[in-house]
Amino acid sequence: LMGKCTSNSQEMVIIKESDVGPIWSYDLEEITCSVDAPTKGSKHHGLKSFTEYRLTPSDTNVQVGHRFKHFDWFHDRLLEKFGAVIPIPGLPEKQITGRFEFEFIEQRCSRLQTWIARLSQHPVIAQSEVFQHFLHFTDEKVWKAGKRKAEKDEVIGGFIFNVMLTPPTELSVQTIESSQDEFGCFVRRMDEGIRNITSTIHDFDKSCTGGVARELQRFGKHLVEHAEAFSCSGYLGEVNALVMAMQHTGKTFKDIGFLFSEHPKKDWNSFMELLLEYKGLLACFPHILQNHKAATEKLKECDKCVTANKMTLLEKETVNKRVDIMAYAGG
Amino acid sequence: LMGKCTSNSQEMVIIKESDVGPIWSYDLEEITCSVDAPTKGSKHHGLKSFTEYRLTPSDTNVQVGHRFKHFDWFHDRLLEKFGAVIPIPGLPEKQITGRFEFEFIEQRCSRLQTWIARLSQHPVIAQSEVFQHFLHFTDEKVWKAGKRKAEKDEVIGGFIFNVMLTPPTELSVQTIESSQDEFGCFVRRMDEGIRNITSTIHDFDKSCTGGVARELQRFGKHLVEHAEAFSCSGYLGEVNALVMAMQHTGKTFKDIGFLFSEHPKKDWNSFMELLLEYKGLLACFPHILQNHKAATEKLKECDKCVTANKMTLLEKETVNKRVDIMAYAGG
Repeated sequence: LMGKCTSNSQEMVIIKESDVGPIWSYDLEEITCSVDAPTKGSKHHGLKSFTEYRLTPSDTNVQVGHRFKHFDWFHDRLLEKFGAVIPIPGLPEKQITGRFEFEFIEQRCSRLQTWIARLSQHPVIAQSEVFQHFLHFTDEKVWKAGKRKAEKDEVIGGFIFNVMLTPPTELSVQTIESSQDEFGCFVRRMDEGIRNITSTIHDFDKSCTGGVARELQRFGKHLVEHAEAFSCSGYLGEVNALVMAMQHTGKTFKDIGFLFSEHPKKDWNSFMELLLEYKGLLACFPHILQNHKAATEKLKECDKCVTANKMTLLEKETVNKRVDIMAYAGG
Repeated sequence: LMGKCTSNSQEMVIIKESDVGPIWSYDLEEITCSVDAPTKGSKHHGLKSFTEYRLTPSDTNVQVGHRFKHFDWFHDRLLEKFGAVIPIPGLPEKQITGRFEFEFIEQRCSRLQTWIARLSQHPVIAQSEVFQHFLHFTDEKVWKAGKRKAEKDEVIGGFIFNVMLTPPTELSVQTIESSQDEFGCFVRRMDEGIRNITSTIHDFDKSCTGGVARELQRFGKHLVEHAEAFSCSGYLGEVNALVMAMQHTGKTFKDIGFLFSEHPKKDWNSFMELLLEYKGLLACFPHILQNHKAATEKLKECDKCVTANKMTLLEKETVNKRVDIMAYAGG
């Protein structure tokens, strides 16, 4: 709140008023970026294997390749630089064994796709140098240079607020605190809701893939078998129509059972991935809110400090200005 | 097989050839009979309560009332008279407690309806005097007289075959035995099939009413709650559409869950009742088949008895003729 940050960074972050409250200004055309075609590579004469993912940003349509560790590096940079104000979703989990199994790579690729998509929608992140570098480096040399530059970036942690331009209107402490409380309550309710929904879907998955699917398929099988019983009744009259109808019904129930067993994979998994993503985002907010509340508490102490001559009015104004910026950014 | 039955009964049972093999001849117009409007009655100044069911036969449209014990009496008569050759389905189970509870009476009434419907489709039973009496007695006095007459009927057990007229063609023992074996195999497979299907439906019921219904309704509830979380996000922009969509989706899942919980009652119970009925019918066949096989064995012994002069050729012919009748009737 009081730190000196002589940043020569051109990366100014602008917050402007709008009819839905303060918003990040977003001058660039929104970028989307696909992550696909995971290919196995190796280094040190095959000693070290890795998987490289192909990224295709929509603005240049020039593909770049990144390994998971590059994503890891990129996540750390974003957390360092924006983590004090913007929720940076976690990367897909790491795994020690089975890292080259098809299903693992397929899931990781899809989750990296979701991760990049979420980031590229965020005005501040998408316009940041490190993001642009991650998507648009042209060769290994450029990649390394950009890496070093990003690792030396001073505008990190709380200093991010020093490169923010906010609307002029000052915010009262009450307004700041009430919006923090409101947002805190929203985060808790969202968190609770997502946990409830996730646990229900897990149980529903088990019912679908276990009980119901199995029983429908068993019922179908027994119905087909039962049809065969009719065909050996010795009755000389017309039995085929009944036998065929029962076989068809039995087969249909088996198909319905199969659909039930596929139900989670086909219908719920994508929703579960979204919930997982939300969970990742929500997990960032308590830390952000905690910082913002601490800053507001500091601001409330400033009056006492000024009266006790421990702080000049100008310094109090600086703190006030920075808490305002934090509130606008947190808004 | 050798018994003398001097029956003066006019109730001849005719079996005729047809393109689907031997069939009972059915001269009457098929009767249907509804069983409904269970009403509570009492006797001995209210000391003895009972439920009376209203029967409306389609041929006369004249309603008669019967208590369960009358059905019980009627079942015994049918078993006695036709049980050696026709499967007489068991009555709905008796119950000591709760005999006047609505659900019990409702279920019993529906099962009596199924029971009478099954019997009225059978050519021999529907044309029998006892059946006609049960449906068409005009008053208490007539009812009692008919009861006594039926209880004195001599054409019962094996003697039923003595009032049967069958096609002239003699059946070889091999034909009789192979059709008995074929039918025995059919009964076993039907029995097994029905047991498998019944057990699967029980499990499916539990999944429907337990796991799946509960989880769908839980999921719906959580989705509605989650929608409310969005409505307190403090976001000034348009949230209502999202909140309403989530609430609608949540409510729909709750409805789907409710449908799942009703699924057994609405869709499977009627099928289970049919299976229950089949099970009752199938349970009669082993006893019938056993008698028929025993008779065939007896016939096979006759040759030895004739050679050993223990039996005259005429007597053997009588046995042969009666085994034929049994085979045609069992056909």
